Amino acid sequence: MLQKICENAKIAARDMAKLGSDKKNECLNAIAGALLEHSDALIQVNETDVQAAREKGVKESLIDRLKLTKARIDGMAEGLVQLVALEDPVGEVVSAKVRPNGLEIGQKRVPLGVVGIIYESRPNVTADAFGLCFKSGNAAILKGGSDAINSNKAIVEVIREVLKNHHVNPDAVQLIEDTSRETAKAFMRMNDYVDVLIPRGGAGLIKTVVENSTIPVIETGTGNCHIYVDQTADIDMAVEIIDNAKTQRTGVCNACESLVIHKDILSEALPVIAARLFEKHVEIRGDESACACVPGITPASESDWGTEYLDLIISVKTVGSIEEAINHINTYNTKHSEAIITKDYANARKFLDEVDAAAVYVNASTRFTDGFEFGFGAEIGISTQKLHARGPMGLKALTTTKYIIYGNGQVRP
Amino acid sequence: MLQKICENAKIAARDMAKLGSDKKNECLNAIAGALLEHSDALIQVNETDVQAAREKGVKESLIDRLKLTKARIDGMAEGLVQLVALEDPVGEVVSAKVRPNGLEIGQKRVPLGVVGIIYESRPNVTADAFGLCFKSGNAAILKGGSDAINSNKAIVEVIREVLKNHHVNPDAVQLIEDTSRETAKAFMRMNDYVDVLIPRGGAGLIKTVVENSTIPVIETGTGNCHIYVDQTADIDMAVEIIDNAKTQRTGVCNACESLVIHKDILSEALPVIAARLFEKHVEIRGDESACACVPGITPASESDWGTEYLDLIISVKTVGSIEEAINHINTYNTKHSEAIITKDYANARKFLDEVDAAAVYVNASTRFTDGFEFGFGAEIGISTQKLHARGPMGLKALTTTKYIIYGNGQVRP
Repeated sequence: MLQKICENAKIAARDMAKLGSDKKNECLNAIAGALLEHSDALIQVNETDVQAAREKGVKESLIDRLKLTKARIDGMAEGLVQLVALEDPVGEVVSAKVRPNGLEIGQKRVPLGVVGIIYESRPNVTADAFGLCFKSGNAAILKGGSDAINSNKAIVEVIREVLKNHHVNPDAVQLIEDTSRETAKAFMRMNDYVDVLIPRGGAGLIKTVVENSTIPVIETGTGNCHIYVDQTADIDMAVEIIDNAKTQRTGVCNACESLVIHKDILSEALPVIAARLFEKHVEIRGDESACACVPGITPASESDWGTEYLDLIISVKTVGSIEEAINHINTYNTKHSEAIITKDYANARKFLDEVDAAAVYVNASTRFTDGFEFGFGAEIGISTQKLHARGPMGLKALTTTKYIIYGNGQVRP
Repeated sequence: MLQKICENAKIAARDMAKLGSDKKNECLNAIAGALLEHSDALIQVNETDVQAAREKGVKESLIDRLKLTKARIDGMAEGLVQLVALEDPVGEVVSAKVRPNGLEIGQKRVPLGVVGIIYESRPNVTADAFGLCFKSGNAAILKGGSDAINSNKAIVEVIREVLKNHHVNPDAVQLIEDTSRETAKAFMRMNDYVDVLIPRGGAGLIKTVVENSTIPVIETGTGNCHIYVDQTADIDMAVEIIDNAKTQRTGVCNACESLVIHKDILSEALPVIAARLFEKHVEIRGDESACACVPGITPASESDWGTEYLDLIISVKTVGSIEEAINHINTYNTKHSEAIITKDYANARKFLDEVDAAAVYVNASTRFTDGFEFGFGAEIGISTQKLHARGPMGLKALTTTKYIIYGNGQVRP
């Protein structure tokens, strides 16, 4: 069954690569319409998944993710319509030159081929991931969480039906319905068919995929993001940025999880920052200096420095120099988003140069690391690895290039 | 020991990222000089490796690869000097824009960090791989074959000595001296320290790395390259290109391993092509039509279609249409280099569009897929995967990017 899905995807990928932008946009609009039209039916099917999850004793926070509402289906449809407006990356000529022997060498953007997406129990990912793969000319194989299986089946069926009606190979999207661990592991070794695997979910899922996949993986997601308050920081600005980065939304990868503060500004800055955070019900865990500086800060342990809380908790580390700050960040970060608050030119440059992360900020909130905020539109995730794509991944990250060479009989001397 | 090497490499990577082009070039020139200066000593050490390999009964063709001669050391030094002339990719601003909220977002090219290279028993790879990693600002961890261990140690020692004398962290290059299989496997799971692994060698080595590594791998190398002779081909041109692609050098990944010929031109083209190939002592294995067309062609079996001979052997497949040709190629190729010989505009475009490979040629030899021939200079390998880099990989393939964002207090609404 898995074998057949992979074979079908490979065939579909060839068809997809030839599909023009107009046709792809026509399908995306039609699928958005069909999802809206089937809203009630989708919500009904989803209700069976939710019921089953409740009976299994799944946590309410996870049930919330699993739930399809009218608003969420509107969001899925809206996401597909937004893709229509984005430029089709396929076919762009990235570079071109003529060599001294007359060979014309062009480098052209082409789809990756077959993209595998492994995700947890958010059924909206099903439509989002399909849409991004489809617009970028790829065939998608989706492997969602077992709790959402009926919802995912229903969504994929709606999409495939529309594709069929528009004379497009419906295997452009396929769902692996067997949600067993064995099938997941077998899927991760389908190198002959699948060009890239993208896990979307928590740290545990990503780790499992990285450790078991022989297919190239793009790691997305986890963000242990820091804000460093330099001794020259504008304290009011620091308060606003830290408040925003910590509390505007807590469950996201670009939220701030740790403050690093220069000792020379600690006694002036930390009480103001802590006051604002306490007001927002944030728990603060600090090193000795931080605890001594502000009552109500509890002692941090070594494990706090490396923790992505995804919650109203933040750690505070005091440092004696920007070098120490950079070193602390490079030791504990997940290479996602890091910020410095400073008025000092040299320290701003040093921080930008030496901090190892996908996005490094001066005087702005880490919350901006996002496809829409960066102006790329919808994203398939935020890459925290260094190969292929780093930072928010839009449609281009789902493409590769190929060299096309025009000759007139050249041979190598 | 391996742990310590990885930790040292991570520290060295931070130093390397800050090293200016002038300093890197100064070191490369000095290392080239030192290798030449130590030629006799290196050849002497290599002699012990060669002796030991002979005693172990290693094949002469492999011993030839293992051997260091004056000419090979000159080649290593020359390779390093050539890198001096290439532009330093680090620091290039790939894109920059101002967002409506005033955030300035730039994307800057930075080194990957720590690059692991796993290779077989060619000691010249030691200097080549180091040079490419060094010029692109990375720390390199080298894991060469056991047969070349003494040669590799001696080369790395020469390089590290020069780095020390130039006040550069010598851990910019480290050799894993323990050549056991266990250490190799442990190395492939050092995700916390190593940013990318590049295997350089035969299909077996590459497969082992792909299957065992949890670190992102760039696959290089194997090339089951085809030339398709379309029914409109200029037969004289086909003969010259096929001869060149098959016989100019046989042991290389961009050599042609298989011909695909349209049935309408078979009886006219194959006798002339075969005559030239027989003249060059090439064994031809064909399908039924090919065998019936030219005496001396022996029957091909199914396994021939997928074989990279790296030898004076070629297979011949007859097809009824360009669709069949493309389908055959996409089924059996290794996504390296493929060529069509044609006078037909539509067929040329169709082939370029639909064949899935890193480099697709019209009317030219597949032998051109090479960093120097493409005008990039020295290469670390030819990527046959789709992520990160595809085709010849020069210095840029050893870099990633990071977003640097200049703000003045922006927070996310």
